[in-house]
Amino acid sequence: MVRLAYLGPEGTFAEEALRRLAPDAEGLPAANIPAALNAVRGGEADGAVVPLENSLEGAIATTLDEFAWGEPLLITAEVLLPVRFSLLARPDTTLNQIKRIYSHPAALTQCRGYISRELPDAVVVAAPSTAGAAQEVALPGSPYDAAIAAPIAGQHYGLTEIASDIGDRTDTMTRFVQVARPGTPSAPTGSDRTTLVVFLADDHPGALLEMLTEFSVRGVNLTRIESRPTGDGIGRYFFHFDFEGHIADARVGEAVSGLHRICGEVRFLGSYPRADGVSPQIKRGTADPEFAEAAEWLKRVRAGG
Amino acid sequence: MVRLAYLGPEGTFAEEALRRLAPDAEGLPAANIPAALNAVRGGEADGAVVPLENSLEGAIATTLDEFAWGEPLLITAEVLLPVRFSLLARPDTTLNQIKRIYSHPAALTQCRGYISRELPDAVVVAAPSTAGAAQEVALPGSPYDAAIAAPIAGQHYGLTEIASDIGDRTDTMTRFVQVARPGTPSAPTGSDRTTLVVFLADDHPGALLEMLTEFSVRGVNLTRIESRPTGDGIGRYFFHFDFEGHIADARVGEAVSGLHRICGEVRFLGSYPRADGVSPQIKRGTADPEFAEAAEWLKRVRAGG
Amino acid sequence: MVRLAYLGPEGTFAEEALRRLAPDAEGLPAANIPAALNAVRGGEADGAVVPLENSLEGAIATTLDEFAWGEPLLITAEVLLPVRFSLLARPDTTLNQIKRIYSHPAALTQCRGYISRELPDAVVVAAPSTAGAAQEVALPGSPYDAAIAAPIAGQHYGLTEIASDIGDRTDTMTRFVQVARPGTPSAPTGSDRTTLVVFLADDHPGALLEMLTEFSVRGVNLTRIESRPTGDGIGRYFFHFDFEGHIADARVGEAVSGLHRICGEVRFLGSYPRADGVSPQIKRGTADPEFAEAAEWLKRVRAGG
Amino acid sequence: MVRLAYLGPEGTFAEEALRRLAPDAEGLPAANIPAALNAVRGGEADGAVVPLENSLEGAIATTLDEFAWGEPLLITAEVLLPVRFSLLARPDTTLNQIKRIYSHPAALTQCRGYISRELPDAVVVAAPSTAGAAQEVALPGSPYDAAIAAPIAGQHYGLTEIASDIGDRTDTMTRFVQVARPGTPSAPTGSDRTTLVVFLADDHPGALLEMLTEFSVRGVNLTRIESRPTGDGIGRYFFHFDFEGHIADARVGEAVSGLHRICGEVRFLGSYPRADGVSPQIKRGTADPEFAEAAEWLKRVRAGG
Repeated sequence: MVRLAYLGPEGTFAEEALRRLAPDAEGLPAANIPAALNAVRGGEADGAVVPLENSLEGAIATTLDEFAWGEPLLITAEVLLPVRFSLLARPDTTLNQIKRIYSHPAALTQCRGYISRELPDAVVVAAPSTAGAAQEVALPGSPYDAAIAAPIAGQHYGLTEIASDIGDRTDTMTRFVQVARPGTPSAPTGSDRTTLVVFLADDHPGALLEMLTEFSVRGVNLTRIESRPTGDGIGRYFFHFDFEGHIADARVGEAVSGLHRICGEVRFLGSYPRADGVSPQIKRGTADPEFAEAAEWLKRVRAGG
Repeated sequence: MVRLAYLGPEGTFAEEALRRLAPDAEGLPAANIPAALNAVRGGEADGAVVPLENSLEGAIATTLDEFAWGEPLLITAEVLLPVRFSLLARPDTTLNQIKRIYSHPAALTQCRGYISRELPDAVVVAAPSTAGAAQEVALPGSPYDAAIAAPIAGQHYGLTEIASDIGDRTDTMTRFVQVARPGTPSAPTGSDRTTLVVFLADDHPGALLEMLTEFSVRGVNLTRIESRPTGDGIGRYFFHFDFEGHIADARVGEAVSGLHRICGEVRFLGSYPRADGVSPQIKRGTADPEFAEAAEWLKRVRAGG
Repeated sequence: MVRLAYLGPEGTFAEEALRRLAPDAEGLPAANIPAALNAVRGGEADGAVVPLENSLEGAIATTLDEFAWGEPLLITAEVLLPVRFSLLARPDTTLNQIKRIYSHPAALTQCRGYISRELPDAVVVAAPSTAGAAQEVALPGSPYDAAIAAPIAGQHYGLTEIASDIGDRTDTMTRFVQVARPGTPSAPTGSDRTTLVVFLADDHPGALLEMLTEFSVRGVNLTRIESRPTGDGIGRYFFHFDFEGHIADARVGEAVSGLHRICGEVRFLGSYPRADGVSPQIKRGTADPEFAEAAEWLKRVRAGG
Repeated sequence: MVRLAYLGPEGTFAEEALRRLAPDAEGLPAANIPAALNAVRGGEADGAVVPLENSLEGAIATTLDEFAWGEPLLITAEVLLPVRFSLLARPDTTLNQIKRIYSHPAALTQCRGYISRELPDAVVVAAPSTAGAAQEVALPGSPYDAAIAAPIAGQHYGLTEIASDIGDRTDTMTRFVQVARPGTPSAPTGSDRTTLVVFLADDHPGALLEMLTEFSVRGVNLTRIESRPTGDGIGRYFFHFDFEGHIADARVGEAVSGLHRICGEVRFLGSYPRADGVSPQIKRGTADPEFAEAAEWLKRVRAGG
């Protein structure tokens, strides 16, 4: 059975993402993101499921930095997980018995409307994770009456769901990716995404514009860009790029080779099916057969044909 | 006396930044970044000093989002603060008496080398902030023997500096900005930076390239770009830009107007002297007198002169 | 009565163009293009009508160079004239009596199909101009039996039109422009064209790309580009640009000012109604009200509003 | 012996260019440029030498159009020929005996200063070519006293050089190219030029900018651009490009393939040593070894290495 590490404890959104990506896998909860990824690198796990970005909070810096600096890994899949918070309590607890709520600060922030409306007098306490909060609340004698966490956490820890979908926004999503040890990317599906890390060779004005031009001239559309500090002082950054297409696509290959030539270092993080199933609009002259035909033509021209 | 809010408690790096920016100001410690900014918005403070980015950790998302979504504020100054960690203990404590170290997780991470070398057997415990750790250590009967915090925290809480500059990297910096309620930016100094938030009108392929071209065609060099989620789902972002020059500069004004025309919303966050004092290289044809001369020329041409 | 110089003698396509542009004007035939333009410069004529380009032959280099180097003139109108050749002979001549055909080489080339089909045994002789050929054929005792020229030449010189529209292509066009001494361009009509001459400041790689970017970033579409030698050696060129819009348009004014700033010299040749009446597609953010609103916005931002 | 056609008669600048390019070749004078090129196409000549552009007059449209529309040919060499005009007369003629000067109008124009200074009363008469003028003057009983032509024409027709270098500008140059039937281009020399003809697929705004970006993104510098009408009406053009580098260069091959993909038709006209011997500045990341390394890298990445 495939073993996949994830950000534990049991009951996290990461576990829920893992269940969607690989329903039959064995989940290995890890203490934090680096630990989950190291389990893959070290061979204790076959893969890992980690969050990459959240539609409210933004990029998960730890994940980005692990992908950039740590021993290389390959992204093999992605999933967009709706972030649905539930109010979880020990069985028989009723709403008006809840005096102390325990959860991760991000969850408390995102459920502020519900809390002030339904539990205006409750005390809220910060927990290290939403699943950890549920775990704590489940303990007999816990000082907390309820946790705010993913529904899956309630199932894991035997808590009752007093209210569901209590976030202020119901459309919040987290994008999780599944990673494996480096290897051949799976075949293109026609709806793929590719992720890169790019370090500049020298940080000159216009360097970012040059990078984007390498993409645009081959008709490759970016879907995400993140800058991260290199650690060498304010003003020095490297970049994460997500874009449409697969490394096996000719237009992607040429664009990525172009970045490799003009940049200091390009780290390929993977090509994998898009969770949203969207197929890219391919600009005239940038489809694979057009690249193949142009290569043939160039060969003939060079040979004097 | 000018009153400036900052991320408290007393003894934080933010307070140190404030002292550098405004040695004579009265500091008002705030519980968190939004609280510091709200003190300005509400008039309890004349300004605030908040971190914007760190050379190891990256952007401070809370600050970016507050600047983008909160009631408008104006950045009036910046400072680059070296992040120098000290090992602080109650007077008379010696290095080999330290069994339990208390600090913010980021500080503990950044001092990992020192701890494993000098205090390999010490237990490290996570604190909500470095200054809070120092405050706690200073209490008689504290369960912690030492804090890792800014030197200023030692002074504030009467702790002895057992070791200084104990970070693994000695070049880590945090960039703090001083903000005020909206008003006229101070006059250009010749070495200025401008900060913007830009929301797209519609998220089409090439939108980022178009934005960067608005800058480059007027010879305005970007110094930082950050993407942040709009909250409307994965794949929807807005942007923070830092760039060389002052909003009063002709080339900056035209570039920013160009963004305003083609984007959904542009929020001006301020033009202020650069902390590094670097003067920009001004590309041929983009200096103020060249813009003025071109405007005169155009007027004549339009009038048939 | 307005007096307009044109490339004579009477009966040229230039005269036909003049009649379309200014039916009531008095035409002053000139010996060549520079002479026609000098008549305007010197005040003997109020304007001139000269060819700028032909859809088969390309740009009229003399016109381009006169506009670039000569004393400045202003283009005030354009017309697209179909080039229709007629076979013209003295009255009573029949097709099978035609043994010697006289015309300008370009006309002979463009009527090659007709000649080889209908007059395969005729001798063709090169004339200095089509109208001159008609003039010559009209003389009693002329050694030539027929001229190929514009229909108007037949009317002028009392010749019979034996065949009309005898060109191999029936869609050949010449674009003529009307010029005047410098003055205020006429008001925008919503379907205008603007013409510029641009000399580079220094001929560096990418200079042309930079110029085109000045246009594209303001959404100004080029309709023609010509390079011409500066005279200073092979590899040194200046440029003629035609593009959509009027110098009074904000987007055109900003683009043209941008060129003025980054180039060595920009000579404005005029904004005038397009002969084809096509209205430009105006890119989002580049219409006049959007420029005006952005200028207001910038003013407020600079003032701290 | 290699036989090269050229624009005759003997004594033209074209013959002089031919002598420089191929001193030992047999020259075959042709009546005009198409005839010279057709001699190559039909096999009567091994190659031809034709003018491409002149530093005063600009492009030679006939040559450009022959290269674009005629049966394909390959440019194999270029030469920059100084245009030096001599005043040539029958032996024993003295300057003050010259009453009638015969030459091509372009030559008469370019020697206007000399004529008005030294022969203010002479009548000037237009000839079909400078060499033809010399040939005519050499005939006993010619109505002309002197020709203005290339020095080589004097040698050919036994004329005396009364004055040399009489052009108003002494730096006028004509660029001639040598062409052959299609075949493999000669090997790169490190200082090469490549010439292309490009037809657009559809004439949309920004098409030219896109073409230039294909070059610039691979660091290929243009040295000449010419637009020519397609014949399908005013506003429809195709383009001639000269640029640094050889079709065998990786950066050139990729740029040209890119044009081939996005344009309607690209016709390769040849890669050949530059007459000026200038070596291009190769932009970081665009040298052949960098392309080769990037291709290897991409292969590994795709294979999961």
